[in-house]
Amino acid sequence: MKELIRNRIGDLRQKMQEEGLDAYIISGTDPHMSEYLPEHGQTRAFISGFTGSAGMVIVSLDQAALWTDSRYFLQAEEQLAGTNIELVKMRTAGHPEPAEWLKLNLRKGAVVGTDEWCISINQFEAMQKSLAEAGIMLKETGDLLNAIWTDRPTLPDSPTYEHELKYACTDRKDKIEIVCRELEKSGANLQIITALDDLAWTFNLRGSDVECNPVFMAYASVSAEEIVLFIEGKKLPAELKSKLESEGIQIREYSGLIEYLQHLPNTAKVRIDADRTNQAIRKNIPAACLIVEGLSIPCRLKAIKTEAEIEHIREAMRKDGVALVEFLYWIENSLGKIPVTEYTVAEKLTEFRTKQPGFKGISFFPIVGYKEHGAIVHFHVSEDNALPIEKNGFLLFDSGGQYLDGTTDTTRTISLSELTARQKSDFTLVLKGMISLSRAKFPSSTRGYHLDILARKDLWQQGLNYGHGTGHGVGYFLNVHEGPMSIRQEFNDRMIEAGMVLSDEPALYRLGEYGLRTENLLVCVKDESTEYGDFLRFDTLTLCPIDTKAIEKSMLTAEETEWLNTFHQWVYNELSPRINDELKVFLKEQTRPV
Amino acid sequence: MKELIRNRIGDLRQKMQEEGLDAYIISGTDPHMSEYLPEHGQTRAFISGFTGSAGMVIVSLDQAALWTDSRYFLQAEEQLAGTNIELVKMRTAGHPEPAEWLKLNLRKGAVVGTDEWCISINQFEAMQKSLAEAGIMLKETGDLLNAIWTDRPTLPDSPTYEHELKYACTDRKDKIEIVCRELEKSGANLQIITALDDLAWTFNLRGSDVECNPVFMAYASVSAEEIVLFIEGKKLPAELKSKLESEGIQIREYSGLIEYLQHLPNTAKVRIDADRTNQAIRKNIPAACLIVEGLSIPCRLKAIKTEAEIEHIREAMRKDGVALVEFLYWIENSLGKIPVTEYTVAEKLTEFRTKQPGFKGISFFPIVGYKEHGAIVHFHVSEDNALPIEKNGFLLFDSGGQYLDGTTDTTRTISLSELTARQKSDFTLVLKGMISLSRAKFPSSTRGYHLDILARKDLWQQGLNYGHGTGHGVGYFLNVHEGPMSIRQEFNDRMIEAGMVLSDEPALYRLGEYGLRTENLLVCVKDESTEYGDFLRFDTLTLCPIDTKAIEKSMLTAEETEWLNTFHQWVYNELSPRINDELKVFLKEQTRPV
Repeated sequence: MKELIRNRIGDLRQKMQEEGLDAYIISGTDPHMSEYLPEHGQTRAFISGFTGSAGMVIVSLDQAALWTDSRYFLQAEEQLAGTNIELVKMRTAGHPEPAEWLKLNLRKGAVVGTDEWCISINQFEAMQKSLAEAGIMLKETGDLLNAIWTDRPTLPDSPTYEHELKYACTDRKDKIEIVCRELEKSGANLQIITALDDLAWTFNLRGSDVECNPVFMAYASVSAEEIVLFIEGKKLPAELKSKLESEGIQIREYSGLIEYLQHLPNTAKVRIDADRTNQAIRKNIPAACLIVEGLSIPCRLKAIKTEAEIEHIREAMRKDGVALVEFLYWIENSLGKIPVTEYTVAEKLTEFRTKQPGFKGISFFPIVGYKEHGAIVHFHVSEDNALPIEKNGFLLFDSGGQYLDGTTDTTRTISLSELTARQKSDFTLVLKGMISLSRAKFPSSTRGYHLDILARKDLWQQGLNYGHGTGHGVGYFLNVHEGPMSIRQEFNDRMIEAGMVLSDEPALYRLGEYGLRTENLLVCVKDESTEYGDFLRFDTLTLCPIDTKAIEKSMLTAEETEWLNTFHQWVYNELSPRINDELKVFLKEQTRPV
Repeated sequence: MKELIRNRIGDLRQKMQEEGLDAYIISGTDPHMSEYLPEHGQTRAFISGFTGSAGMVIVSLDQAALWTDSRYFLQAEEQLAGTNIELVKMRTAGHPEPAEWLKLNLRKGAVVGTDEWCISINQFEAMQKSLAEAGIMLKETGDLLNAIWTDRPTLPDSPTYEHELKYACTDRKDKIEIVCRELEKSGANLQIITALDDLAWTFNLRGSDVECNPVFMAYASVSAEEIVLFIEGKKLPAELKSKLESEGIQIREYSGLIEYLQHLPNTAKVRIDADRTNQAIRKNIPAACLIVEGLSIPCRLKAIKTEAEIEHIREAMRKDGVALVEFLYWIENSLGKIPVTEYTVAEKLTEFRTKQPGFKGISFFPIVGYKEHGAIVHFHVSEDNALPIEKNGFLLFDSGGQYLDGTTDTTRTISLSELTARQKSDFTLVLKGMISLSRAKFPSSTRGYHLDILARKDLWQQGLNYGHGTGHGVGYFLNVHEGPMSIRQEFNDRMIEAGMVLSDEPALYRLGEYGLRTENLLVCVKDESTEYGDFLRFDTLTLCPIDTKAIEKSMLTAEETEWLNTFHQWVYNELSPRINDELKVFLKEQTRPV
């Protein structure tokens, strides 16, 4: 593998020289700015061997570097060893940002290339401006990898299908009407939809182009005058195509977007999200059109779940909760009796979910970390690297399902033996953070970066922290990571609004020892309105007990203890009607008040 | 006054028509982007009659509007009544931002003018870009008010003086060396200093050009090759001028900056803060020079107080604390005996400070609010509007001094009678917020917007809030509001660093009833370093008792009670050696543990 990577970089350098480039940027995303990619789009993994879900690679004629975030530092170090690719840690002192790195390593007059299809407008412009300060040019070169990637997988051609109205809750005609109304309010009259989950939501369609994410590759243009879906013909079953056409939706080829853009009328006021739209699209919109910058309209609408959707999600959570309780019961009764490894745990988690109605697959590959593996934030377990699990210490598992009525994502850490005082204290600090965010009440203009500290402050007080965000948006039978909002330290100007579903997952990683993470999904709901503003709070969605044996009760405040007991009572009430008597006894014990 | 304002706007409109303008923007600041202005620069007050410290005015041919923030909503409503100027509330739903307002009210092809000397580069560019979307042009017109402001005060010509090294702690040669070193690190080699407090800090000079802020109007250019100070000749005493020149500092006229900029060599790499530098300066830098965008180097250095400075600040706090205790004793023994009004309180606060050594004046005009006046955030008390104070309810006072060894800013709210349960609860919620921020421990990359919620969360939980920031930086014998950092909800990417001095002032305003605010100054200090990062915390600087009679003790956590008692013990220990026996008895009582 290492040699393969070195050879690929060599091939790329030759290509770069032919093109007169001193460096080439592989952004690591696709034309839809996706986080998770079909194999065809996995350029970062192809050129570097690094398989994490975030990162950028830059290859110069004599150097190569990969930027990734703290979730993947350990994994990247391992996977890059021997490739001559340097790991540059994002948001870490002493580690230059990509533009800075280029300026440090290239001379005035140098030319840097990138595929304009795979870089956002803002990224491109910021990079261009920054490099220009040092007399370096950023050039749009298209995809240089295509020429050297001889066995590149083809673009996915899995069939697209409808998300039944029963589950989708709002039909696409109504959704498109709302989009057009919001467009008009924003001073625009046309929305180019490029994000795959925005598309899936808008058209109530789903696909299987990306593992674990039920999306399909396409673009769309939506305006009051016309609705155009750009999709490979073979991906759209004839019946569905007719249905869409009968509803007035024009179907064109995936590659037809550029020509369509180039012929937009001068009256078009195109709403474009410069953070989530690629530079090639921007470049192909005629100069005479007005550009209205702003988040894609479907992106925000999709994030605000309707009451009907939330009812469905609550049902999906009950099903997921049953699967998780079955799993907890299984592991308690299997350890010490049959061989259990991290890998079998991952398989079992999926197996229990598979039994639930409406289950369409996992929402991401389960993260199962026993002991020191728990400290590897996004540990990818396989049959080869799986540790056998014994009755000792902590087991962390983070998993979720795709159901027709919702997407789930739950992390629990359970104790498999008596714990030390420090282990209990660590577990309780993480739990306090999770509860603190769950209990928050806040004005309607609050952003995620305002709230993030609630989940961290008790850890910080002890000199502890975790190197990832606290909460991500979650889709509705869609991507388990969904924008536009988030709860993290990093700036994200999107407000937390009523109807948004977010994870709440503080953590603590003791390198070489264990990892702790406790994650519930929350839905933001309206609280009271006072003369000081409209207030919001969270309701918890996740139905799964938290290991009370791992808690140091004296560290909980009265309010936190009350929250925990109320939560457990609710979990029991919701799940007990769906499980057998043996499981009921088990769940009763798991949810006993502390 | 109302008629005067209407006439001035009429005159401006005539001028606008002569210049072919459809609207004119009065940014409300000066060429140095100052918050507090010499009378010459008070364009906002001239054109609108509004005397608050923040806001922008736009006059079109048939409309006029003022934007200000929530601190000033009440004051602005009163002062704008009858002027035909509309109040637009900043950061308030349904209230358009200035560019949006212009786009709503002007047609395609319209021309908007502004004085390029009084708008920051970023403001100018953002406004220009936003207006261009609607086909509106933003034009640099210079200052149109000058022609209609016939009795405009002249530019201030108060003498500049040295801040003795004994207090300044670092001599200007060393400061300039550090500036040059930091410049080089940032890829620049020349700093244009435009902010008046940056100048005062860099050169260890002070002035009296702006009320309460010991600054002088000037610009400077600093590089390893040359140091140039641009200042009106008459503002620089001959002896000081010679001294500066003997140290290699060139003195040029204030108006000489433009010519200097126009002749910068091509090798100049000019560091410019686009948020804090005016558009005229940017425009006059030759295109061949490299622009390195970033916060002015002195701005950050100035905010990080040295250990020697912090020692001096602690001494200034002791002096200020004695004055405040004398004031508290005076009011307790005067109410009901002699007539006391809000105005006499403001005078007394200054009088007690004046007795302290090194006192150079007040750091801002005292805000004194009895009962319902307390709810007017920045209430400006005068002999005319002052309420008589009786033994009833709350009295809020926010005041500070300029000492040679530090700048102070303290708010206390005291109860003058038995309180209702709600009054006590309100007071305690505000106090909990103040303590929560004081006790914070956080990693070194933390921003103020991460911390702000600590001061608000207990208020939010009850549906309460306050409409201003929680903390501002404080200068060292300099401006009482000092950047670059802050603790507030609004985005500000500057980190809180060890050595920075900030206020901690949560509040609650019950309109028509009372206002509560409790403010201490804090200094950020290093805490432990762990494998999870370098941690920081705050030490409290302010020495003044908090009214324990107003506290509902059952609402404090054990940690909060401990913090309060430790704080009060410290206040007594620090101040008691400096006060007479009568005051000692009084202070002992005020600082008794709860």
